[in-house]
Amino acid sequence: MNLKLIEISKIIAADLIGDGEKEIKSVKSIEDCDLDSISYIENIDKLAKSKIGNPGCLIVSKKEKDKIPFKTNLLLVENPKLAFSKLLSFIERENSKKYEFGISDKSVISKNASVSSKCYIGPFCVIEDNAVIEDGVIVEANCYIGSGSFISANSRIYPNVVIRENVHIGSNCIIHSGSVIGGDGYGYIQTENSHQKIPQIGKVIIGDNVEIGSNVSIDRATIGETLIGKGTKIDNLVHIAHNVKIGSNCLIIAQAGIAGSTIIGNQVIIAGQAGISDHVIVEDNSIIMAKTGVMGHIKKGSILFGFIGRPRMEYMKIEAIFSKLPEIYNFYKKFKRDNEKDDK
Amino acid sequence: MNLKLIEISKIIAADLIGDGEKEIKSVKSIEDCDLDSISYIENIDKLAKSKIGNPGCLIVSKKEKDKIPFKTNLLLVENPKLAFSKLLSFIERENSKKYEFGISDKSVISKNASVSSKCYIGPFCVIEDNAVIEDGVIVEANCYIGSGSFISANSRIYPNVVIRENVHIGSNCIIHSGSVIGGDGYGYIQTENSHQKIPQIGKVIIGDNVEIGSNVSIDRATIGETLIGKGTKIDNLVHIAHNVKIGSNCLIIAQAGIAGSTIIGNQVIIAGQAGISDHVIVEDNSIIMAKTGVMGHIKKGSILFGFIGRPRMEYMKIEAIFSKLPEIYNFYKKFKRDNEKDDK
Amino acid sequence: MNLKLIEISKIIAADLIGDGEKEIKSVKSIEDCDLDSISYIENIDKLAKSKIGNPGCLIVSKKEKDKIPFKTNLLLVENPKLAFSKLLSFIERENSKKYEFGISDKSVISKNASVSSKCYIGPFCVIEDNAVIEDGVIVEANCYIGSGSFISANSRIYPNVVIRENVHIGSNCIIHSGSVIGGDGYGYIQTENSHQKIPQIGKVIIGDNVEIGSNVSIDRATIGETLIGKGTKIDNLVHIAHNVKIGSNCLIIAQAGIAGSTIIGNQVIIAGQAGISDHVIVEDNSIIMAKTGVMGHIKKGSILFGFIGRPRMEYMKIEAIFSKLPEIYNFYKKFKRDNEKDDK
Repeated sequence: MNLKLIEISKIIAADLIGDGEKEIKSVKSIEDCDLDSISYIENIDKLAKSKIGNPGCLIVSKKEKDKIPFKTNLLLVENPKLAFSKLLSFIERENSKKYEFGISDKSVISKNASVSSKCYIGPFCVIEDNAVIEDGVIVEANCYIGSGSFISANSRIYPNVVIRENVHIGSNCIIHSGSVIGGDGYGYIQTENSHQKIPQIGKVIIGDNVEIGSNVSIDRATIGETLIGKGTKIDNLVHIAHNVKIGSNCLIIAQAGIAGSTIIGNQVIIAGQAGISDHVIVEDNSIIMAKTGVMGHIKKGSILFGFIGRPRMEYMKIEAIFSKLPEIYNFYKKFKRDNEKDDK
Repeated sequence: MNLKLIEISKIIAADLIGDGEKEIKSVKSIEDCDLDSISYIENIDKLAKSKIGNPGCLIVSKKEKDKIPFKTNLLLVENPKLAFSKLLSFIERENSKKYEFGISDKSVISKNASVSSKCYIGPFCVIEDNAVIEDGVIVEANCYIGSGSFISANSRIYPNVVIRENVHIGSNCIIHSGSVIGGDGYGYIQTENSHQKIPQIGKVIIGDNVEIGSNVSIDRATIGETLIGKGTKIDNLVHIAHNVKIGSNCLIIAQAGIAGSTIIGNQVIIAGQAGISDHVIVEDNSIIMAKTGVMGHIKKGSILFGFIGRPRMEYMKIEAIFSKLPEIYNFYKKFKRDNEKDDK
Repeated sequence: MNLKLIEISKIIAADLIGDGEKEIKSVKSIEDCDLDSISYIENIDKLAKSKIGNPGCLIVSKKEKDKIPFKTNLLLVENPKLAFSKLLSFIERENSKKYEFGISDKSVISKNASVSSKCYIGPFCVIEDNAVIEDGVIVEANCYIGSGSFISANSRIYPNVVIRENVHIGSNCIIHSGSVIGGDGYGYIQTENSHQKIPQIGKVIIGDNVEIGSNVSIDRATIGETLIGKGTKIDNLVHIAHNVKIGSNCLIIAQAGIAGSTIIGNQVIIAGQAGISDHVIVEDNSIIMAKTGVMGHIKKGSILFGFIGRPRMEYMKIEAIFSKLPEIYNFYKKFKRDNEKDDK
C-alpha cells in the first residue's frame, strides 16, 4: 500500500488532525507500528504505554483524542476498530486476486448443472447434475459440488472444499479450504456385535452470511436437515453432526464439536474444544466456555465452564478450592486420627 | 419419493394395517411427520405424546401396535428402526447418482497400476504405480491413491481423499472426504535442541466394512502396521497415530484421538473428544466416555469417565461432590478458626 | 529389502559382531522380530524379557552389548535409535517413488509464477501469480499454492494441501495432506447481534525444517504474521489461530489448539488435545500436558496439567485426593449431623 492520510481519511470517513500529505506504507498492530505505518487504539486506558509503538498515524475515537500521550497524526472516528477494519477491506480489495467471471475449461461441469455466467469456477472442479451456482459465486480450484446442491449469490468457496449432494449454501457465505459439507451422519443400528449403517439421506442447509473455517466437518441429516442459521461464524476443525440445528449469529470456535440432533439457539458462543452432547438444547445467548462439556438442557443466557459444564462463577469457585484440597485432606486425616485415638 | 403403503410394506417386509393405496411422499422424524409422510417409533413408552406429529403411516413393532394413541396406518415389523433404515436404503438407491463403471480420462493412472474395468474413477484422481483397485470400487474426484496401495472390492472413496502408499483398504469400506490415510507417523529423535525425523516406512491396514468419517487422519506405522479392525466405524476429525491397533466393530466418535502404539480391543466405544495416551491397552467392550483421558491399562468391559478417566460411577459421585466443595471448605475454615481460638 | 549384515554395518557405521554374510529381509519392532529381521534395543533394563522376539540381528549400544540375554548377531553403535533411524532412511530412499523433476502438464501454473526447473509439480496443482517454488521442492497432486507464496528449497508438499496467498514456507519443510496454511483468521467485530468480518490481510511465515501433519489448520494473521519457528514439528489436526507466534523446535501434538495472538517460546511441548487461550505467553521449555487448558502467562520450564493447567505435581496430588472426596464428604456430613445434635 501507499496512501496519503487525506486519502485514508476519506476511505474510513474520519476527521484528520495532522498532515494530509503524509504517506502511509503499511498497517500495523499498536505494538509494532512505526512512522511509516498506521494503527488504531480502541481503549487507551486498557493499554500499557510501553506497548505502544511509534505510529505515523493513529485511528482513535473522538472521545479519546486528548488521551494520546505523544504527538502524531490522528484520524478521529466513532469506532476505531470498525474504521481500521474498513481500511483493511480497502487494502484487501486493492491487493487481492481479481477474479474474472468464467468457468475453467479444466473443470468438469455436468450438462444438467445450472452455473451462472457471472461466477468464477477455478480449475479441477467437479459440479454434478442439477447443482446451481448463482451470480457472483467464486469456487476455487479442486472443489467438488454434489448433485442438487445450491450455492447462492456471492458466496465464496476456497480451494479443496467438498460440498456433497443436496446441500444449500446461502448468499455471501465463505467456506474455507478442506471443509466437508454434507458428509454422511454417523448413524448405525447395532446388531449383536456389528454396526449396520443407517442411510443418511437428509440435507444440510446453511443460511446467508455464514463463514466456515478450514477443515470443518458438517454432516448431512439422516432425514430432514442439518441447519446452520444466518450470520453464524464457524472456526477451523469444528465438527457438526447430523441433524444439528444452530441458530443465527452464533460463534463456534475452533475444534468445538456438537453431537447429533442437538439444538443451539441464536447468538450462542461455543468456545474452543468445547463439546456438546447429542439431543441437547442450548438456548439463546448462552456461552459455553473453552473445553467445556455440555450434557443437559442449557437455559437462555447461561455461561457454562468445566469438564462437565456448570455456571461459570460456581465452577471458578470449585477450581479455586481444588488448590485447597491437599490442605483439607491433611486436616481431615489428622483430625480423624486424633479422634480415633481419643476414642480408644 | 412417491410410494404406496402396499409397496413400502413389501420393501421392508411388514404387515400392513390400513390403506395400501395411501401414497407416502416423504420420510420424516416422529416429531416432524405429517399426513404425507411415514415415520417409526422404537419405544412408545419413552416418547412424550406431545412430541409425536401426525404421521400418514407409522412403522411399529408388533408388540407395541396397541399402544399407539391415535388412528393411523401401521406397518408392523420386528425391529422398527431396522425396517425404517431399510426404507431409507431403498430411497437412497432410487435417488443417488448412478455410477457407470469407467475411468475418467481426466485422471492420471499409472501404467503399472491395476485398476478393474468394473470400477468408477472420477476426474482429477491420481493412482500411482502398483496400486490395485478391485471390482465395484468407487473413487470420486480429486482423490490420490499412492503406490502399492490396495482398495478391495466395493469400497467407496468420496472426493478429496488421500490414501498414501502401501495402504490396504478392505472390501465394502467407506472413506469420507478430506480424510488422509497413511500420513507419516509423528516420530522424532531428540538431539539436543532439535528433532530429527524417524522415517515412517510402515503400512496402514484397514479391515472390511470399516467406515471412516470426513477429515480423519490415520497415520502409517513407523515399521509394521497401523491396524483398523473389520466393522469399526470412525467419525469425523478423529486422529489415529502410528502403530495403533484397533479391534473389530469399535465405534470411535468425532474428534477422539488415539496416540502412538496404543492397542484397542474389539467392540470398544471411544466417545467424542476422548483421548487415549500412547502405548496403552484398552480391552474389549470398554467404553471411554466423551472428553475422557486414558493413561493406563483399561480392563475388559470398563466404563471410564473424567479428565483422567475413572470408573464412570466413581467419577459421577466425585463430580456431584464438587458441588459441595464450597460448603465443605467454608465449614473447614470456620472449624479450624474456632479450634485455633479454643487453643489459645 | 534384502541386505547383508556387512552392508548394514556400513550404512549405519556400526561394529559388527557376528556373521557379515547373514541376510536381513525386514526391519521389525523388538517384540515382533524374527530370524530374518533386524531390530534395536535402546535400554535393555527397561525391557521385559518376555517382550523380546527372536531377532536375526540387534543394534545395541556398546555399553549394553554384554547384557543381551541370548546369542544373536550384534551391531554396536553409540545411539541405537539413531542408527536404526538411519537404516530406515536408507530403506525409505531405496523404496520410495523416484521423483523426476518436471511440472505436470495437467497443472495450471501462472505465467507470473517462478517455478524452478529442478522441482516436481504433480498433476492438478494450481500455482498462482508471483508464487515462487525453489529447487528440489516436491509439490504432489491436487495442491493449491496462492499468489505471492514462497516454497523454499527441498520442501515437500504432500497431495491435497492448500497454501493460500502470501505464505512463506522455509526450506526442508514437510507438509502433509489435507493441511491448510494461510486460511483467514477468525476475527469479527460485533455489531449488535451480527458479526462483521475483519479482513485478514496478514501472512504466515514458517521456518526451515518444520513438519506439519495432516489436516492441520494454520491461519494467516489479521495484520502482521503468524509465525512457526524453525524445527518445530506439528502433528495432525492441530489448530493454530491468527497472529500466533511459535518458537523453534517445539512439539505440538495432535488435536492441540492455540488461540489468537498467543506466543509460544522455544522447545515447548504442547501435548495432544491441549488448548492454549488467546493472547497468552508460554515461555521456553515449558510442557503443556495432554488435554490441559492454559489461560495465563506460563513461566519458563513449567510443566502444566489439568482442565485448567496447574503445575503437574500439584495437579496429580489434587487428582489423587478426588478419589478421597466421597470419604471426606461422608465424614463431613456425619460430623455436622452429630454436632448439630450436640447443639440441641
